[in-house]
Formats: sequence, structure tokens, C-alpha cells
Amino acid sequence: MSLNTLQDLFVEQLKDLYSAEEQFAKAQPKLAEAASSSELREGISQHVEETKAQLERLEQVAKLLDVESLKGKTCQAAKGLVKEAEELLEEGGDPKVIDAGIIAALQRVEHYEIAGYGTVCAYAAQLKQTEAERLLKETLAEEKATDQKLSMLAETTINQQAA
Amino acid sequence: MSLNTLQDLFVEQLKDLYSAEEQFAKAQPKLAEAASSSELREGISQHVEETKAQLERLEQVAKLLDVESLKGKTCQAAKGLVKEAEELLEEGGDPKVIDAGIIAALQRVEHYEIAGYGTVCAYAAQLKQTEAERLLKETLAEEKATDQKLSMLAETTINQQAA
Repeated sequence: MSLNTLQDLFVEQLKDLYSAEEQFAKAQPKLAEAASSSELREGISQHVEETKAQLERLEQVAKLLDVESLKGKTCQAAKGLVKEAEELLEEGGDPKVIDAGIIAALQRVEHYEIAGYGTVCAYAAQLKQTEAERLLKETLAEEKATDQKLSMLAETTINQQAA
Repeated sequence: MSLNTLQDLFVEQLKDLYSAEEQFAKAQPKLAEAASSSELREGISQHVEETKAQLERLEQVAKLLDVESLKGKTCQAAKGLVKEAEELLEEGGDPKVIDAGIIAALQRVEHYEIAGYGTVCAYAAQLKQTEAERLLKETLAEEKATDQKLSMLAETTINQQAA
């Protein structure tokens, strides 16, 4: 597929995010299972539900743009991010330290999504796709809030316990 | 390597960032070459120099922690991020649209680094490694500034030209 218009790139980026969300949705339960802190485990489980809603929002945006499906692309960065998290779990160690590592992995995921959704929000604004922009901004706000919650959890509890 | 202390995880994360910076330093000139906007090209070239300084800063932090070398780990997420940027260049299309895509790829890279340096800054603070924290915060501030510059360039120029 050749990228001839901003609309082409917009759709391409939505497909990338769709693949990323799908990969993260699959990986999150494994991270929740590996976490020893109940607060962290609950936080991840909550985010799994949020991820499902975010996938639905991407499908709604596709409909608004008359795009039949966002499936079929593999987000290579998400693949790498998931692989990195799996490597951490394989390394093993003190459960409190692994918890801190899980938060580090999750914040990398959040920041991938913050960059990605920030980009598509800008494209939607440029292309005057107001309803798509509104939906994508909702997800962007959720990703930023999750990242902040993770920072808070790390700095007030998990990193202290790991140290 | 088993992660038994926060210090172990700190070193592991520094190694991850070192590998990421090395991979990005290698990929950036290819992206600069592919960019048609001279402003974008110059911005990337400037960032290549910044990346070199950031690698040196990581080496300084390693010395402070008595770690002999940060080499030998491959950051899987960086590998995925670079692969994704290469895929974009292979797809090809209108040069203005490709410029917008290059910015999208670069902002994903910046956010990977913002998450990574944010994490190691928090570990340095927790471990009372004041000088390491100062150095890492310098890089974190640079990455955030680069991300903001890219957003500005996209929203005021590149996305409009691509539309």
C-alpha cells in the first residue's frame, strides 16, 4: 500500500494501533498473573477491560472513515514491547523487583499508545474528522491517566518495596 | 541474570536504554535521508548529535554505579520500533505524507525513551543515586523537548502539507 494522502496514513496508523491493542490485550493477563502486588494485579485487570473498550472505539472510528476492517497489519513495535516484558518474566528474581519491572514494561506500553493516539488525534483534527477526533481523544486521556497511576504506584509503593 | 534487587533492575534498564539509543542512532540518518522537508531533516540531524551525548551520559551513570559495561543486551522494543519505521519507508508514497509518517515514528521513539528514562530516574531517586539521577533527568528533559518540537512541526507544517 502506497501512502498518497494523509487519510491513507491515518488509516495505516489506526491499523497499527489496532494490532498493538490486540497484542497488549493478550499480554496483560500474563503480566497480571506474574505480579505479586494485589494493587498492581487489580490495576492491570482493570486496564484489560479498558483495552477492550479502546479496541471498540477504534472500530467505531473505522466505520466513520468507511474503512471496512483495521485487521491484517502487525504492529512490530508492540511485538517488541511484549517480547521485552516476556524476557523480564523469564529472568525472574525477587517478586517485589519483578513488580517494579512489570510497571516499567507497562509504562513503555502506555507511552507507545500515548505517542500513537496523539498522532492520530492530530490527523483527525487536520482532516476535520470531529467525531473520530473525539473518540480518539477519549482513549488518549485514558492512556495518560493509566501512565500516571502507574508512576504513582511505583513511586509511592512498589519501588520502595523493591529497594 | 536474576533480578534480586532494585539495583539489578536499575542496571538492566540502563542496558536496555543503551541498546535502544544505539539502535536509534543507527536508524536516524536513514530517516533524515528519507525526509523531504529540510526542517525535519535538520531536526533529525540535530537529534543524532544529542543521542551521542545521551549515550555518553549513560556511560557516566554506569561508572557511578561501578558497572563495567552497558553493552550486550538487545532492546527488543527498539528493534520493533526501527523495523516499523523501515516498513514505512518501504511502503513509499507522497513525500509530504512520508514526512508525516517519519514524525509519527520518531515520536514513538521519543515516548519509548520518555518512559525508559522516567523509570530509571525514579530508581535513581529511590536508591539515592543523586548524581546519576541528575544526569538521567537531563536526558529525560531533552527527550520531552524533542517530542514537543516534533508535535509542533507536525501540527503547524507537515500535517497541513500532507493533507
